[in-house]
Amino acid sequence: MPDFQVWASAHQSRFEDSLRRLLPLPEVAPQRLHEAMRYCVLDGGKRVRPLLAFAAGELAEADSARVTIAAAAVELIHAYSLVHDDMPCMDNDVLRRGKPTCHVEYDEATALLVGDSLQSLAFQLLAEHMLNDDPVRQLQMVKMLALASGSRGMAGGQAIDLASVGKQLSIPELEFMHIHKTGALIRASILLGAQCGATLNESQQERLNHFGKCVGLVFQVVDDVLDSEADTATLGKTAGKDAAQDKPTYVTLLGVTAAKKLAAELHCEALDSLAEFDEKARRLRELADFIVLRKY
Amino acid sequence: MPDFQVWASAHQSRFEDSLRRLLPLPEVAPQRLHEAMRYCVLDGGKRVRPLLAFAAGELAEADSARVTIAAAAVELIHAYSLVHDDMPCMDNDVLRRGKPTCHVEYDEATALLVGDSLQSLAFQLLAEHMLNDDPVRQLQMVKMLALASGSRGMAGGQAIDLASVGKQLSIPELEFMHIHKTGALIRASILLGAQCGATLNESQQERLNHFGKCVGLVFQVVDDVLDSEADTATLGKTAGKDAAQDKPTYVTLLGVTAAKKLAAELHCEALDSLAEFDEKARRLRELADFIVLRKY
Repeated sequence: MPDFQVWASAHQSRFEDSLRRLLPLPEVAPQRLHEAMRYCVLDGGKRVRPLLAFAAGELAEADSARVTIAAAAVELIHAYSLVHDDMPCMDNDVLRRGKPTCHVEYDEATALLVGDSLQSLAFQLLAEHMLNDDPVRQLQMVKMLALASGSRGMAGGQAIDLASVGKQLSIPELEFMHIHKTGALIRASILLGAQCGATLNESQQERLNHFGKCVGLVFQVVDDVLDSEADTATLGKTAGKDAAQDKPTYVTLLGVTAAKKLAAELHCEALDSLAEFDEKARRLRELADFIVLRKY
Repeated sequence: MPDFQVWASAHQSRFEDSLRRLLPLPEVAPQRLHEAMRYCVLDGGKRVRPLLAFAAGELAEADSARVTIAAAAVELIHAYSLVHDDMPCMDNDVLRRGKPTCHVEYDEATALLVGDSLQSLAFQLLAEHMLNDDPVRQLQMVKMLALASGSRGMAGGQAIDLASVGKQLSIPELEFMHIHKTGALIRASILLGAQCGATLNESQQERLNHFGKCVGLVFQVVDDVLDSEADTATLGKTAGKDAAQDKPTYVTLLGVTAAKKLAAELHCEALDSLAEFDEKARRLRELADFIVLRKY
């Protein structure tokens, strides 16, 4: 079995090819919109969510072509959220994945429409490809992604985030925000990847769900630590932004040392929830390690 | 059989109750976002798309509870597009359905998230309720709405609209824009309503599709005429906006008289495409009349 880096690189590179194929071609009208959609999605990011979907797909012995579609749907939702979050009325950021943000490279109206169109495309993908032999399970996948994206998931987390600027949050409040803002979609990527494969029993689903919750949260804790310690060049996005915008983070609330300790605890809890799975959960375990130990 | 006004009012009022039930409650966190979503969707609009869905549902003898969900999904997409279109980076409008627009009543970031969340909710509704005994046909409905909403549908039409400001378009170019911008979703509302019922044969589907195309286009032609002739109080939105923003319209391209003649021709073509349907197409015919003869 290839080591993690080889596995991850192979999947990232094949996934990039798939995204190129699944996005509308820049020659198709409206050309500028399609060009901007490709600009915002392609050649960027660590593809953590797709990798989680692939890893969960391996756990459920899913067909990898099907998982690719589910992973693409999640990544399009993630990409749309970045485009909208970077807009002047939200975080007003100019740099993303080492490139000018969409509204800087194009314009604000285009950025708005790019985000809207990427969201539609995500649901189109989940509906037009066969992802499970049972169409009822596939409809559940559509519902799962919609819930994770909407006002009781990612977009709701953004709203809580906006409302928290300049406020002193408690740790449970901060956790509530992140479970929505980043956690919901990370959890969805794992569940959707698994949903392409064999049906897991209830206890297995519960453990996978808990793994997703821990990974989603630790991802954010590590992000906060990196944001406070790394520089802009390494991150490919503006460093120290949260502190500058007076947003509460795990680092501002706990201090760096306690934030790192929390990350280590969540890491353990994530791995514990996979304890009863066999070797098929190997990539999920390695991804939990990667998410905690990454430097960018 | 009740006359059209009675039928329409009864459906509008029941539909309003359904929307109230289907939208997240304002007490649920994040409260401000949910309150704003309800502000933008409830108590507003003629509900033309839902009425078209109900009328098409009657044609296909669909269960009205199922059609209600499909109609709500379409209306949420429509509502989200209005919220985003009104934002400063797009049309920068302050009045909609006789009320301050979302970014004026709340703020721009909230308007962005309201639109994003309404889109997610539309797909959630299509996935979580049973809309057809055959889940494969239901997945087709999800795909249909996604295509009608995205870059090759409504959002794409918006992009073409933005690119056309200050330009001289030809009539085919203007038609291409509107077939996307308003036509795609109007057509989808008809097809989704029908899709909740018995399977239509290919020729029936084709005729219904053509009806949808004509109705979508005539809706826009009439909108342009009203925009040039009616006042802001009657419309409930800023009148004369397109001309002021130097956007091409059927009236600026053809003049009012020829635009009205085009509307009459499309009206006939729409009714012709229903010729072989029986009395079950009555409400669709009446809606075509209503769309052409409306004063606001």
